[in-house]
Amino acid sequence: MHLGVCYYPEHWPESCWEKDAEAMVALGLRYVRIGEFAWSRLEPRQGVYEWAWLDRAVSILADAGLKIILGTPTATPPKWLVDTYPEILPWDAQGRVRGFGSRRHTCFSSDVWLEQSLRITEAMARRYGDHPAVVAWQVDNEYGCHDTVRSYAPHCRPAFQNWLKRKYDTVDALNQAWGTVFWSQEYDDFSTVELPVGTVTEANPAHILDYARFSSDQVIAFHRAHEKLLRQHSEGRRITHNMMGFVADFDHHELGTTLDVASWDSYPLGFTERDMNLPRPLITRYARTGHPDVSAFHHDLYRGIGRGNWWVMEQQPGPVNWAPFNPAPVPGMIRLWTWEAFAHGAELVSYFRWRQFPHAQEQMHAGLQLPNGAPASAWKEVAQVAQECTLLPDASTSKAGTTESVALLFDYPSAWVYDIQAQSASFRYMDLVYTFFTTLRRLGLDVDVCGPNADFSDYALVVVPTLPIANRAVESLKRCKGRVVWGPRSGSKTPNLGIPESLPPGPLQANLPLAIEYVDSLGPDLSFQVTWKGKTYASGVWREQINSDLEPAAHFDGGSGAVFENQQWTYLAFWPSVEFLLDYLEATATQAGLNPVRLPEDLRLRRRGPFTFAFNFGNHAVALPVPADTSFHLGTRRVPPHDVAIWEHRGDAPPEEMR
Amino acid sequence: MHLGVCYYPEHWPESCWEKDAEAMVALGLRYVRIGEFAWSRLEPRQGVYEWAWLDRAVSILADAGLKIILGTPTATPPKWLVDTYPEILPWDAQGRVRGFGSRRHTCFSSDVWLEQSLRITEAMARRYGDHPAVVAWQVDNEYGCHDTVRSYAPHCRPAFQNWLKRKYDTVDALNQAWGTVFWSQEYDDFSTVELPVGTVTEANPAHILDYARFSSDQVIAFHRAHEKLLRQHSEGRRITHNMMGFVADFDHHELGTTLDVASWDSYPLGFTERDMNLPRPLITRYARTGHPDVSAFHHDLYRGIGRGNWWVMEQQPGPVNWAPFNPAPVPGMIRLWTWEAFAHGAELVSYFRWRQFPHAQEQMHAGLQLPNGAPASAWKEVAQVAQECTLLPDASTSKAGTTESVALLFDYPSAWVYDIQAQSASFRYMDLVYTFFTTLRRLGLDVDVCGPNADFSDYALVVVPTLPIANRAVESLKRCKGRVVWGPRSGSKTPNLGIPESLPPGPLQANLPLAIEYVDSLGPDLSFQVTWKGKTYASGVWREQINSDLEPAAHFDGGSGAVFENQQWTYLAFWPSVEFLLDYLEATATQAGLNPVRLPEDLRLRRRGPFTFAFNFGNHAVALPVPADTSFHLGTRRVPPHDVAIWEHRGDAPPEEMR
Amino acid sequence: MHLGVCYYPEHWPESCWEKDAEAMVALGLRYVRIGEFAWSRLEPRQGVYEWAWLDRAVSILADAGLKIILGTPTATPPKWLVDTYPEILPWDAQGRVRGFGSRRHTCFSSDVWLEQSLRITEAMARRYGDHPAVVAWQVDNEYGCHDTVRSYAPHCRPAFQNWLKRKYDTVDALNQAWGTVFWSQEYDDFSTVELPVGTVTEANPAHILDYARFSSDQVIAFHRAHEKLLRQHSEGRRITHNMMGFVADFDHHELGTTLDVASWDSYPLGFTERDMNLPRPLITRYARTGHPDVSAFHHDLYRGIGRGNWWVMEQQPGPVNWAPFNPAPVPGMIRLWTWEAFAHGAELVSYFRWRQFPHAQEQMHAGLQLPNGAPASAWKEVAQVAQECTLLPDASTSKAGTTESVALLFDYPSAWVYDIQAQSASFRYMDLVYTFFTTLRRLGLDVDVCGPNADFSDYALVVVPTLPIANRAVESLKRCKGRVVWGPRSGSKTPNLGIPESLPPGPLQANLPLAIEYVDSLGPDLSFQVTWKGKTYASGVWREQINSDLEPAAHFDGGSGAVFENQQWTYLAFWPSVEFLLDYLEATATQAGLNPVRLPEDLRLRRRGPFTFAFNFGNHAVALPVPADTSFHLGTRRVPPHDVAIWEHRGDAPPEEMR
Repeated sequence: MHLGVCYYPEHWPESCWEKDAEAMVALGLRYVRIGEFAWSRLEPRQGVYEWAWLDRAVSILADAGLKIILGTPTATPPKWLVDTYPEILPWDAQGRVRGFGSRRHTCFSSDVWLEQSLRITEAMARRYGDHPAVVAWQVDNEYGCHDTVRSYAPHCRPAFQNWLKRKYDTVDALNQAWGTVFWSQEYDDFSTVELPVGTVTEANPAHILDYARFSSDQVIAFHRAHEKLLRQHSEGRRITHNMMGFVADFDHHELGTTLDVASWDSYPLGFTERDMNLPRPLITRYARTGHPDVSAFHHDLYRGIGRGNWWVMEQQPGPVNWAPFNPAPVPGMIRLWTWEAFAHGAELVSYFRWRQFPHAQEQMHAGLQLPNGAPASAWKEVAQVAQECTLLPDASTSKAGTTESVALLFDYPSAWVYDIQAQSASFRYMDLVYTFFTTLRRLGLDVDVCGPNADFSDYALVVVPTLPIANRAVESLKRCKGRVVWGPRSGSKTPNLGIPESLPPGPLQANLPLAIEYVDSLGPDLSFQVTWKGKTYASGVWREQINSDLEPAAHFDGGSGAVFENQQWTYLAFWPSVEFLLDYLEATATQAGLNPVRLPEDLRLRRRGPFTFAFNFGNHAVALPVPADTSFHLGTRRVPPHDVAIWEHRGDAPPEEMR
Repeated sequence: MHLGVCYYPEHWPESCWEKDAEAMVALGLRYVRIGEFAWSRLEPRQGVYEWAWLDRAVSILADAGLKIILGTPTATPPKWLVDTYPEILPWDAQGRVRGFGSRRHTCFSSDVWLEQSLRITEAMARRYGDHPAVVAWQVDNEYGCHDTVRSYAPHCRPAFQNWLKRKYDTVDALNQAWGTVFWSQEYDDFSTVELPVGTVTEANPAHILDYARFSSDQVIAFHRAHEKLLRQHSEGRRITHNMMGFVADFDHHELGTTLDVASWDSYPLGFTERDMNLPRPLITRYARTGHPDVSAFHHDLYRGIGRGNWWVMEQQPGPVNWAPFNPAPVPGMIRLWTWEAFAHGAELVSYFRWRQFPHAQEQMHAGLQLPNGAPASAWKEVAQVAQECTLLPDASTSKAGTTESVALLFDYPSAWVYDIQAQSASFRYMDLVYTFFTTLRRLGLDVDVCGPNADFSDYALVVVPTLPIANRAVESLKRCKGRVVWGPRSGSKTPNLGIPESLPPGPLQANLPLAIEYVDSLGPDLSFQVTWKGKTYASGVWREQINSDLEPAAHFDGGSGAVFENQQWTYLAFWPSVEFLLDYLEATATQAGLNPVRLPEDLRLRRRGPFTFAFNFGNHAVALPVPADTSFHLGTRRVPPHDVAIWEHRGDAPPEEMR
Repeated sequence: MHLGVCYYPEHWPESCWEKDAEAMVALGLRYVRIGEFAWSRLEPRQGVYEWAWLDRAVSILADAGLKIILGTPTATPPKWLVDTYPEILPWDAQGRVRGFGSRRHTCFSSDVWLEQSLRITEAMARRYGDHPAVVAWQVDNEYGCHDTVRSYAPHCRPAFQNWLKRKYDTVDALNQAWGTVFWSQEYDDFSTVELPVGTVTEANPAHILDYARFSSDQVIAFHRAHEKLLRQHSEGRRITHNMMGFVADFDHHELGTTLDVASWDSYPLGFTERDMNLPRPLITRYARTGHPDVSAFHHDLYRGIGRGNWWVMEQQPGPVNWAPFNPAPVPGMIRLWTWEAFAHGAELVSYFRWRQFPHAQEQMHAGLQLPNGAPASAWKEVAQVAQECTLLPDASTSKAGTTESVALLFDYPSAWVYDIQAQSASFRYMDLVYTFFTTLRRLGLDVDVCGPNADFSDYALVVVPTLPIANRAVESLKRCKGRVVWGPRSGSKTPNLGIPESLPPGPLQANLPLAIEYVDSLGPDLSFQVTWKGKTYASGVWREQINSDLEPAAHFDGGSGAVFENQQWTYLAFWPSVEFLLDYLEATATQAGLNPVRLPEDLRLRRRGPFTFAFNFGNHAVALPVPADTSFHLGTRRVPPHDVAIWEHRGDAPPEEMR
C-alpha cells in the first residue's frame, strides 16, 4: 500500500523541482508518474531530442527517494508531427478530421502513426530503460478517452478489410456471417466492404460489431508493439497502461493479458455526475461523495484486468473540470477514497496532480497544491492517510478477495452489442451491471469483477448481469462448482450477432432448457410484476416470454415464467430491480454457502487479507455490527459520516444483520 | 377479404420453400409478396441475371395455390451498382453523401439511377410479366422511408432549376412568387438558384416549399416510369406501391392517381411509440394495443389514395425492432388489427413477415414464425382470423364507407407548409389532423380521409383540420351540399406561401367574410377559453384575432370571435381541443343529418357494407348499445377487452347513446 | 423624443410611396429608416447601379417632412456577388460553408468582402451623402445576428495568425500566454497555429478566447472602414449601427467608441421567450408583456454604448416570427414599451416595420399596417403615444440617468470567458447580470449599464455581477468614491485566461485580501445557505471556499465566509439569489446615500430629467406611493395593468415604501 502522485516537471521552473520532490517525500508519497504528455519538450523538432531537462528531473526525483513511473508521450503528439504527417489524424463518423489542439489526435490504424510513435517510445526506452529509479513504464495514456478508439479515416478501410479477410478468409463466409442477403447487402470482395458509417438508416449490426472488434484490436496491437519495445530496452520494469473509468470501446481484458500491472483513474464525483446514468436525485445525493459503488466497481474490475496487480494512477483530489457540474468533495472523502482503493487491493494510489496548473484545459482541476504552491484542501487528508498506513500491517499479498467473493462477469463486447442493437432505449449495459454490483455490495459481499475468460471453477456464486454472446463463457461456467445467475438476454446472440439456431438463450440451453418466444421492451412508465416466494416486485425495462418444460421459480403477473432454475443455474427473464435482487441474491448466496448481510444503504464493507474495512458514504454515523471487544486498527464501531473503520475479522463468523 | 404474407425465399434454403408454401396455405393465407429486396441475388454482377432461383420460388408458391405480388428490388441496389455509379447516392442537407450499407441509398434526381433502376425492372417484367401466378407488382418499397425523398446531391441543383423553369417560365416570375426582393435574394437566372440548405439563417419559405414540391414530383416521376414499363410487359396485373405510415414528404394522393391498388404498412405499436407525438401517459396507455386511431386513420387515408382499392401490405405481427421501445402486443391484437383493416375496407391483409430472419438489421422484428420455424405468438390469432373470415359474407364490394361517412380533408403539402413555417413549435399538422379524426371516431362516425382534389359534393359533413393553401379546395367545397368545418390557418397562404392579398383566410372569404388581424402562438402553459352555447372550453397552442361583421358563434375570453358560421361553413379561429370538438362536431353532424353517438374512449365502430364492426382497445369489457335480438356474426353484445364484434346493422337506425 | 419607422420602398409599388409617407407623418412619425437590405435593387449587376428608384423614394419621404436614416446594404450581398466571389462566404465550426439564401452570408476576415462592401458603401455615400433629408447612416445591420461573428473559413487562419503576431510578437510569448506546454500543444511558429475548432476534446481556452477577441476585432475593423468612408462623403451626418439584443459575440463597447449614436432592436416578447433563459413559469407569466427588465437592461446598456445617444431602431409592434412561440402582446404594450424607451433616455423609437410584407422569411412578423395596408393592432397605440408626446416637455437633454443611478459593470469578454470555461452548466453570464439588474430595478433604482472602461469615479454604488478578467477595471474602480460590490469569480482569471499567480480574486486583492482555495459547482438540486445579519438565504449554482484574515460579513452553512467587505468593497463568494440581493443591495445602497424603495414585482420606475415614469407590467392595477397632490403629465396615482404614469418628481424626496 503506497501513495504516489502525478507530476509534470515541464510545467514548472527547474528551480522548484527539488523542493517539490522533498515535499512529496515529506508528505508520505513514494511514487511519482512523469512524462506522459511531454513529447513537444522531448523532441521539439523531428529527430532533435532534448533529454537534458528530463535527465535532471529524473535525477532529482530519484535522489529524493521516489520511484518513477515513466509515461511514453504518445497521447499528445506535437504540432510539427501532425503537420509533417497529417495522415495520422483520426476521422469522426461524420467524415470530419479530428485535428490538433487537445490530445489523442491520432488514428490507431495509421501505419505512419505507429512508426512515429514507436520511434519516440524507443528513444525514451533507450535513454531511461536502465535508470534504477524508473520502476515502471506507462504506455501512452487513457486509450479511448474522448471517443478515440473508433476512427473512420481513409486508411481505416483497407485495414478493416484486411482484418475481415483474416477473420473470414472468404467473402462468402463474411456474407453468411453478416446475413448480407438481407437488403441485398452482399459483397463480392473484401476490397469493396465499406466502413459502417454514413448509411441511410442503421448499418448491419454484425458489420458494426466487427468494426468495434477491429477497432479494439487496433488498440491492442498498438499497445503490444510499444510494450515489446519497452521490454527490449528496459528489462525488469513493470509495464502498465493507465485506463479511464466508463470507457468501454476497447477490450480491457484483452489489453490486460500482457500488462504487469493495471492502472486506472478514479474520479468518483465526475463519474457520478456525468457517466453513471443515475436519476438526478441520486446524483444529488452522492454529488459530494461519489456513489458508493462507482469506484469500487472499477477497483474490482481493474484488479481482475491486472490479475491482482493494479494501481489507481490518478485519484481525484478535489473538484475536477470536465463534468457538467463539478462540486467539491465533502471533507474526508480523499482519505476515504484512498482507503477504499487499498481495501479493494490496490498496491498504489497516486493523486492527480501534484500542483494545479494555472493554464490551459485543466486549470480548474484541483491538485494537492494550489497553483501558487500552497496546500490544497486534500493535503491534510493525504498526510493523514500516509500516517495511518504505517499503522496497518501490509496486506498486499492478499490481492484478490477472499472465499467470500462473488464473481461478476463483465464483458466489453456486451457493451458494444447493446449499443449496436439496444431494442430498448433504456437497455444500457452499465446500468444492468451496476444493478447487480450494487446489490451484492449492499449484501456485504466482496465481488471479483471477472472477464469472460476468467477461471470460475472455485467461485461459490457467479452472477452474469447479461452476456449476449455467451458461447465461450458457457463452456467455462459449466466447470464452475457453484451457482450461476444469468440476467436477461444472456445467450441471445451468436458470435456474429445473429439469433441462435436453437433460439435464445442459445448456449445456456445446455443447463437451462428454455426458448424465448418474444421479448418485451417497455417504455419508462410501463411496468410488470414478478412474484417470487409469495412476494411481489415491480419491475420494468425488459421482459421475456419463455417456453420451457421447467417449472418456473417466479412468475410474471400474466402467469408466465420469470425465473428458471436448473442444475445450479438461474435465468432471469427480465430486468431485475435492486429490491428483487436483494432478496434473490441473498437467498442464492446463502444457499451457495456465503454469508450475505444487509448493510445500510450508504455503508460498504470490504475484506482484504485479514482486515475488514468499513466505509460510510452517508451523512449519518453508522454502528458496525461487530463484537464489542473488536479491536480496531482504525476508527471504532461507530463510523462517523464519510469515515472509515478497519479491523481484523475472525475466521468465517458472519457479521450480524445491520440496518 | 384475404390474408397474405411477405416472404423472402432468398433468405432460406430452397429445401424449405415447399414446406413454407404449404404451411402458408394451411394457415389460410392466399397472397404472398416476394422479391422486393433481392437485387443482389437477381443480378449479382452487372448484366448477369440469375433467374433460376426465383423461377423455382415462384413455381413452388404458385403450385401451392398462392397469388404472388412481385416487388421490383430498387429499394436496395447492390454494392457493385453503387461502386460503378457512385453518383446515384443521395446527399443529406449537411452536404454528406449517404452511402451503401442499409437501404434506399439512391437519389430520385439521378438520371443514372433512373436508367439503372428501369433496367432491372424491365428485366424482371420481361421474365415474370406473363406468369399466371403473378397477380400484381409492387414498384420499389416505402418511398421516403428514412427521410429519403429530399436529397441535396450536385445533380439535384440543375434538376431543380429545370423544374423551376418549367413552373415559372421566367426568373422574374420566380422572384415575384418568392418575394426575393426581401433581403436582396433576387436571382438573375434559373441557373443561379441554390438548393435551400446551408443558409446562415432559415431560407426563404417559398424556396423550401418549391423544393419540397420538386422532391415529391421526382418521386412520382420515378414511379411513373417504372409503372409504364411494367404495364408494357405485364398486361392486366395490378400495380401498387407499398407506402409507410407517417411519411409525408411526397404527395401520396398524386402517386395514387395511377395506382391500381394502394398498399401500406400498419405497425400500430411502433407508430404509437415513435411517430404519433402523443404525451407519454397516452403512449403508455396504448403501448400494447396501439392508439385506437393510429391505423384507422391510415386505413381511411389509403382507401382514398387507392380510390377504394387498398391493401395492408405489412401488418405488424409482434414486437418490431425500430422504435425506441418495442413492446409486445397484448394477446388478441393481431386478430383485432386484421379485422379492423377489413372493417375499413381492406381487400388484403398481409403479415410482415413469414419467418423472423436471424441476421442483419431486422432480426428483432417478429414474424409469424420464429427463426427456427416454430409458430410465433401471432400464429394462433392469424389462424383464427382466417377461420372467422369464412363466416362472414364477402363485403368487398362496399369499398368506401356509407352515407354516414364524414369527409376529412388531408393534404400532404399542408404538412410541408407547417414544417417550413410553423410560427409555433407546437403547431404540427398531424396532431391537428388526429384531433379531428379522433373526435369523429369517438362520435361513432365513419370517416373518409380525402385528398384536396376529391369530389366532396355528396358529403353531409366535411371537416378540414387546416388547409393553408386552400384555393383549389375552396372551389371544390363550394359545390359540397353539406356542411364544411374549417380549422385554423385554413386559407392563410397563397400557393407560393405568401399572405393572401385580402388577408387570411383568403379564398375562404367567398363564404366566410373574415379577415385575420393577427395570430397568437402560445407556449405550452398559456391557455385561453372559448365559450360556445354557454359552455366554456380551455384551449391552447393557437388563436386568431378576427375582424368580421359576422356575429361569432363562439367567443374567446377576451370577447372576440372564436367560431364563425356562414352559409353552412364554419371557421374555427383557434386550435380546438377534443372536448370542444366532441360537442361542436356532434351538433354539426346532427344538423347535417348524421347520427353521431358518443362512444366509450377505447371503443371504435366501423361500418362496411351491411356490417358493423366494434373494436375494444381497452382493458375492460364494453356493452354495445344494440337491440337485444341483434344477431352477431362474431362476438356478442358484450365486447371483451381487445376483442371484436360484427353484426349486420338495420337501415339507418342509429345506435343508442353509449357510455 | 421622436417616433420613426423602418420602411422598405423596394417592397411596394412606387404608386403607394407617397400615400405611405403622408400616412407616416399623419401618424406622428418623424424618422424613417430605409435601404439596409436593398443591394440587389441598387446594384443588380456588378458595377451597374440603379439609383433612380431610391432617388424617388428619398425625395418622396423627404418631401413629406421625414428625416431619413439610410442603411448601407451590406447585410445582404446579392447573388451575383456571391457567385463572383464565393470566397466571401463564412464557414461554420464544422467546416461547412454557410451559403446564400438568407442574410449575413459573409466572413469578416475576407479581404475581398471588405473591398466589395466598401465599394457599395462608397457608391451610396457619394450618391446620398449630401442629401439634406439624410440625417444619419446605419452601417450594415445587426452584426453577429445568426451567429455570424465567428467564421472558420480558410482565409481566417492567416488573418488570425497575423493578429496573434501583432499581439504576442514572438511565438514563445504566445506559448507562455496559452500554457501550451500542457499536452504538448506548443507552436514553433505563428504560421502553424490552427483555428480552435475540430479538436478531439476541448481546445485550449486561451486559444479560444483569443479567437473570440480576434473575431470581435474583425467586426470592429470592418465597421470602422465603412464609418471612415461615410464620414468622408457625408459630412455632419450621424453614424450608427443597429445592434440586436442578446448578441454578445463582439465587443459592443468597443464598437460604440466611434458611433455618434447607438441603436438597437427591442423585441421584448421574442427575447423573453427565446433568449432570456427564464424558467418556463416566468416565460409564461411575461409571455405577452415581456419580462419587465428585458428591454430596460438593453436600454441602459445601449445608452452607455452610445455615450448617452441612442435609439430603438426596431421596436416590436406585434407578434414576431422567430421565437419558438410568438404570442401577441397584450393591448397597451406597444405604448408602454415606447414610453419605457423614452424614460430610459431614448431619442428615437422606430417601429419595425411600416407594413407587414406578405412574402419571404418575415411574412409572419407584424408591422404597423397589415399586408393590405389596413392598420394593424399597434396603430392606435402608436397614434396615442405620438399624441401624448406633445404633452410632455422635452427631456432630451437629460440623457444618462440621475445621481440616483447605480452603475452595473457589463463586459462582453466576460460572456466569452464563461462560454469557454463555464465549470458549471448553470453558470451563464447573462443570468447573473440579470439577477443583479432585476434586483436593482425592484429596489426602484435607476441603473447605468457601463463598460469596463467607463469612468466610475462619481457613482455612489457600482455592482459588478462578475468580471473574471478584472485587471483594468480594478484600477478604474479604485478611483470610485462609492461602494463596489463584486460578484463571484471576479478577478479569477488573468488576461490570457489563466489563474492569477496570487490566486483568485487576483487584482481585487488590492482592496480585498482573499484567496480562493477551491470552487464548488453545484447541480440543479444542490443548494447551500448563506446567513447574513441573522437571516438565512438558500442559494445554489456556485460557491467558493475563501482563505482570508478578514472577518466575513456573511457565512455559509459550513461556517466559512460567504461575503467579505473591506474599504468600501464587497466580494460575494457565491451566486446570489434575488432574495439575498434585495436585502443586501438595499442596505448597501442606503449606506451609499441612495434611496432604494421596494417595488411590487411587476412595477418599474425610471427617472429622466425632471420626470419620473412608472410602468405596470402586471395584470393588476398598482397604487403609486406619491403625495396626493402630485400632478401627473400622464396617468394617475393608480396605474392600471399594462399602463404608464408620468409625473415630475420633487428634488431628492424619496418615494415611500411600496408594496
